[in-house]
Amino acid sequence: MKKSQWNPRQLFFPRSVAVIGASSRQLTIGNRIIQNLIDMRYRGKIIPINPRKTAICGLPAFPSITDVPDHLELDLAHIIVKNTLVPKILQDCAQRGVKTCIVNTAGFSETGPEGAALEAEMLDIARQTGIRIFGPNCQGIINTDPQTNAYCNFTFTKPQPGCISVYTQSGGIGEVINNRLCEIGEGLRMYASSGNACDIQCWEILDFWKNDPQTRVIILHLETVRDLLPLSEKLAELTRLKPVLGILGGCTFPGKNAVLCHTGGKIHDRNHEIQTLTQAGVLLINHIEEICRTAAGFSRLPVPTGNRVGILTNTGGAGIIAADELFRHGCRVENLDPEIIAQLQGVLLPEATLGNPIDLLATAGAEHFHTVLTALLNDEHVDSILINFITPFFVDCEAVATKLCALMVQAKKTIIPVIMTDKKIWADTLNIFQQHGFPIYSQPDMGARVLANMTRYGQQINHC
Amino acid sequence: MKKSQWNPRQLFFPRSVAVIGASSRQLTIGNRIIQNLIDMRYRGKIIPINPRKTAICGLPAFPSITDVPDHLELDLAHIIVKNTLVPKILQDCAQRGVKTCIVNTAGFSETGPEGAALEAEMLDIARQTGIRIFGPNCQGIINTDPQTNAYCNFTFTKPQPGCISVYTQSGGIGEVINNRLCEIGEGLRMYASSGNACDIQCWEILDFWKNDPQTRVIILHLETVRDLLPLSEKLAELTRLKPVLGILGGCTFPGKNAVLCHTGGKIHDRNHEIQTLTQAGVLLINHIEEICRTAAGFSRLPVPTGNRVGILTNTGGAGIIAADELFRHGCRVENLDPEIIAQLQGVLLPEATLGNPIDLLATAGAEHFHTVLTALLNDEHVDSILINFITPFFVDCEAVATKLCALMVQAKKTIIPVIMTDKKIWADTLNIFQQHGFPIYSQPDMGARVLANMTRYGQQINHC
Repeated sequence: MKKSQWNPRQLFFPRSVAVIGASSRQLTIGNRIIQNLIDMRYRGKIIPINPRKTAICGLPAFPSITDVPDHLELDLAHIIVKNTLVPKILQDCAQRGVKTCIVNTAGFSETGPEGAALEAEMLDIARQTGIRIFGPNCQGIINTDPQTNAYCNFTFTKPQPGCISVYTQSGGIGEVINNRLCEIGEGLRMYASSGNACDIQCWEILDFWKNDPQTRVIILHLETVRDLLPLSEKLAELTRLKPVLGILGGCTFPGKNAVLCHTGGKIHDRNHEIQTLTQAGVLLINHIEEICRTAAGFSRLPVPTGNRVGILTNTGGAGIIAADELFRHGCRVENLDPEIIAQLQGVLLPEATLGNPIDLLATAGAEHFHTVLTALLNDEHVDSILINFITPFFVDCEAVATKLCALMVQAKKTIIPVIMTDKKIWADTLNIFQQHGFPIYSQPDMGARVLANMTRYGQQINHC
Repeated sequence: MKKSQWNPRQLFFPRSVAVIGASSRQLTIGNRIIQNLIDMRYRGKIIPINPRKTAICGLPAFPSITDVPDHLELDLAHIIVKNTLVPKILQDCAQRGVKTCIVNTAGFSETGPEGAALEAEMLDIARQTGIRIFGPNCQGIINTDPQTNAYCNFTFTKPQPGCISVYTQSGGIGEVINNRLCEIGEGLRMYASSGNACDIQCWEILDFWKNDPQTRVIILHLETVRDLLPLSEKLAELTRLKPVLGILGGCTFPGKNAVLCHTGGKIHDRNHEIQTLTQAGVLLINHIEEICRTAAGFSRLPVPTGNRVGILTNTGGAGIIAADELFRHGCRVENLDPEIIAQLQGVLLPEATLGNPIDLLATAGAEHFHTVLTALLNDEHVDSILINFITPFFVDCEAVATKLCALMVQAKKTIIPVIMTDKKIWADTLNIFQQHGFPIYSQPDMGARVLANMTRYGQQINHC
């Protein structure tokens, strides 16, 4: 069996998951993976493998993978046994017809020459038998597709379905990202944390996600870039279709040193890698909060078709900070169409400022917001819009939210809502934006950076 | 009466607050200020002024400020009346012996020549009578000192007492900052949002906070810098004693244009201003989240005495990101003392990495954390420590937190705890850090930036 015949569906949509090293003891990885699969209502068959148990977590167990009856298709197996036993188990898996193994076990190339030899041995087996290895020294995968609900991973974050897919070399960073996406109300589509990634490569996963229509945006965390050339070629194709937000660990002296110890990888020329990834259209962001917030924007809003931003604000200071941050990151915040300004004169409060930002003042009500957002949507010199809305106690904020959302759901322009509020007191106002499916930003500088990142991507694909 | 005789205590610790333009109608500023004072249990006397009411919010009202009986000392008055009436009211206040007025009313220099003339008229009255004006076009002040609980402001965030004081030119940005500090569990000491700041200047407030022992760190948001020279001289004195975290709005073309409209100010040479403020020791940060998180660090942790950071992590990827971010922002992440490394060998898990970061691995327990943190505290080549702690389900995380906190409370070194977790499932673990008074960071890059900002300040004061 050749590599090209391997189908990543076996990894992400497995009809069965064997867990070699399954355990009845709580707080072990061999127990947690089974429990996670059960908790997430995995739609396939869970097959615990343990030489000393006949049942684990209420599921029938088998002494070894080769004892599993022939009528059970074995798409995927977790391997959690001691590192020195992994090659033998891989042989057994191949013999039994397992297609793909997630090797969670650590103690391979990341630990030195002995571990590297073990990893090489595993890879030889994969090459000889056609079985594919995900890992070793890794967490595994998650696929929230309701067809499968595959949570082949021992971590704790239980995501809702969404359209952000996440590939990380570090399980810890993956967990921080997944957890933060959950906290800000974003769902996950698929997740893969590949550790040493000795066999199945990043680009194979990305290629699969390229063709997954439910994946709208990808977060990519890398520490070592193996096969830069094929990876960047695949990325160049991928980023034409969907945005890839990159975070690259190990860009400094101490970071590089730490990478050598972590995933066992080598860093050749990081500057060259950064430039190649950028050239391939990856948006390198490097801050976890900004990457999650930007992914939320891409997952729920259209991509800007140009870099001219109109700012609508009801608080001057926030408009200024947004204007600064947009301009710093390549957006244009210019005078609006004089005809449109003329139309607005007399309609807004007399002290309102008709520049860019348009400052409606804190006392502005729903009609004022509606009028100005309509004007900005009609202004041909405006490609995208940032709304700064602070919730004054003397304004009917739910009415403002309702009016804004009515326009936003129909808008073809990208509209970033920055809602500055007490999340408890104005929960109903926030809910209106949420129920309409919009991401919510709470700080003008973050809203502006997200819009600038989205704009950068828009310019990239429009110039292709 | 000369300016120099004015005491900012009249503004921040007023024995009485008159509200000129007080209202019984909910959702008006003249009602909200009174309600806020009542809700925050203001310790002084609240005196509503309204020509048509005898009582407002259950408090006896007077038709005008001059009708308030002589035995009532009038330290502070809010003015909320129409802009053209403000000069007359100021005259009345001065005549009645009011010391300081917060002019919430807008419609002055920020709106054009007519408003500017009104503002000039107000300033003349102040100069002639000795009364001092805070504002106009402003929110007001907050002082959480339990002696006074003065909430002379119409906004909604109700802060707990703390040791961060905030000065903003924009009420909206002030509200975003106060609200975020609340969300991350940080208290506020004093707050001042001065709008056009025609009379009482920023440096007068800062000078007061310089001598306020409960203010440990100051957040300073500016759009227009008036009197750069006296301000920078005051700041140079102040920043030797406590850190000032600055955010400057209007640093770009569109931002500057918007400033002209907002607080009615002029920007002369922003580059010169930025350099002068930096020279005076202000840490310009410009991102709201980072400024709040850095303030939290300064409010609860000692200032680093040098820039050599030791990183302790139980997840490799987060250690790498922290190392990168620290190095990028001027910290050193270097090899640890070989003697100390030698002591750790054999004590940690065999696969643990004894570099910098020290990677304990996810399976490390409380004793491992304790051993390594003790070693880093003893290492003379380490000035501060960043802990990355992801909470694995198979580790007794509360035990880890307890062991870490026991060392942290006694430590003289700055220790930044980055706790990567699900805030609900591991609430008890997080509580241990909170109850010991530590700020909690949830992303390694943010923890690293905060430590780098604190280090920058430490280097600044040590080189003085």
